[in-house]
Amino acid sequence: MKKIGIEIRVRYVETDQMGVAHHASYFTWMEAARTELLRKNGMSYRAFEEKGFHLPVREAYCRYRKSLRYDDVMNIEATLLELGGASLKIGYKIYKIGDRIADGYTLHAFTDSSGNVVKAPRFFKSLFKS
Amino acid sequence: MKKIGIEIRVRYVETDQMGVAHHASYFTWMEAARTELLRKNGMSYRAFEEKGFHLPVREAYCRYRKSLRYDDVMNIEATLLELGGASLKIGYKIYKIGDRIADGYTLHAFTDSSGNVVKAPRFFKSLFKS
Amino acid sequence: MKKIGIEIRVRYVETDQMGVAHHASYFTWMEAARTELLRKNGMSYRAFEEKGFHLPVREAYCRYRKSLRYDDVMNIEATLLELGGASLKIGYKIYKIGDRIADGYTLHAFTDSSGNVVKAPRFFKSLFKS
Amino acid sequence: MKKIGIEIRVRYVETDQMGVAHHASYFTWMEAARTELLRKNGMSYRAFEEKGFHLPVREAYCRYRKSLRYDDVMNIEATLLELGGASLKIGYKIYKIGDRIADGYTLHAFTDSSGNVVKAPRFFKSLFKS
Repeated sequence: MKKIGIEIRVRYVETDQMGVAHHASYFTWMEAARTELLRKNGMSYRAFEEKGFHLPVREAYCRYRKSLRYDDVMNIEATLLELGGASLKIGYKIYKIGDRIADGYTLHAFTDSSGNVVKAPRFFKSLFKS
Repeated sequence: MKKIGIEIRVRYVETDQMGVAHHASYFTWMEAARTELLRKNGMSYRAFEEKGFHLPVREAYCRYRKSLRYDDVMNIEATLLELGGASLKIGYKIYKIGDRIADGYTLHAFTDSSGNVVKAPRFFKSLFKS
Repeated sequence: MKKIGIEIRVRYVETDQMGVAHHASYFTWMEAARTELLRKNGMSYRAFEEKGFHLPVREAYCRYRKSLRYDDVMNIEATLLELGGASLKIGYKIYKIGDRIADGYTLHAFTDSSGNVVKAPRFFKSLFKS
Repeated sequence: MKKIGIEIRVRYVETDQMGVAHHASYFTWMEAARTELLRKNGMSYRAFEEKGFHLPVREAYCRYRKSLRYDDVMNIEATLLELGGASLKIGYKIYKIGDRIADGYTLHAFTDSSGNVVKAPRFFKSLFKS
């Protein structure tokens, strides 16, 4: 499964004095969606780290089209865009009742627990083959 | 002045279980640097909002080259890249003792307090003329 | 209904380098549970603010008994403890699969949108009468 | 030295839609002040963790008297209140230009890196003897 969607409700703490959700919050929602994308493909990211791997973020991008307010429920889609030899790119789209709110991506390296870049492990790649 | 630099120390809360500063924190540091870039040019962003303007983020991007740890002191540079008719683009570079840690940019719209896009006010543009 | 419970999953961003959820995150989960306590009693806090009221926090307390890790699912209970003339006290208990993780409370004032303390509005009090 | 003070400026991300600093942010400022209290007494908390110790929070409390706004500069005092056999209590007072804004405390356990409670190490206690 290359694409999943989850619902997230905007928390009060995630708003700022502009009255809308702060732009940095979007990256934490993308992260929550990424967790579910991996889980739905049979890989809990927690278990992945326990095996000694990490997926640190190398690039993060978001384009904000409309704003979200406190207590809004968004739908956030996470899609596997690229699974390279040592990198992973995931795309995100955020909707609210059909309205496109934002979209973005994150690019990750595969590293060991010391932060050294490693190849994407075979068992990880095989999850996304089907 | 088109470029300023400030120092920020990584807070414990900004770390995650990977043992480094979380990638979303970088956007909050960029924001702190942006505040100082405007202030050094004679415009407190707080005062700008009190005049009825906002600078919501339309795009945000960061490239992470090396990581930062708890209690590290970084130097973050903010540079005015473009001041368009209704938009503002600011670039950022984060260093730690000479090492380039990350860089990125934010693109902003000028809006009124209801969120409607407006032209960049003349008094704002004149600040960056010299 | 004086007590409700919701489930929240610990996000990666909420961990710190100790490998557990950061203590400040608990207050944001309490806030999410508070939102649902009000909603279940027929009062969306968002609608309450739109009527011109606020419930700023006057005191916040948390006792941490055990820790939570990334991806843990907690159950958080919010209970109306006191609804005074101009104040509201809510208690919280956080569990993970039966284990008590933490408990705490928040004390709130009723204010108008300018921050002046006001009496708890009658329609608010009547919600919790039954 | 049992008491230190530092200045912190409220960041935009720390505000919420009430237009003031969110109550959970206060605990992250207390943490920043705690870091400096230890450093001024000759103990970097980072070095303390590298020696295999942790100071997880067991209780956290804050009383909010007045609010802080974006770009406000606060002075936050951290004071060693108790250094017990296996616990540490630190008190905090937050001021803005003489106004008392908030005060609180955190209670910590001494643990090893596996989270087991240990005695306060002698070298730690000796720092606060003078």
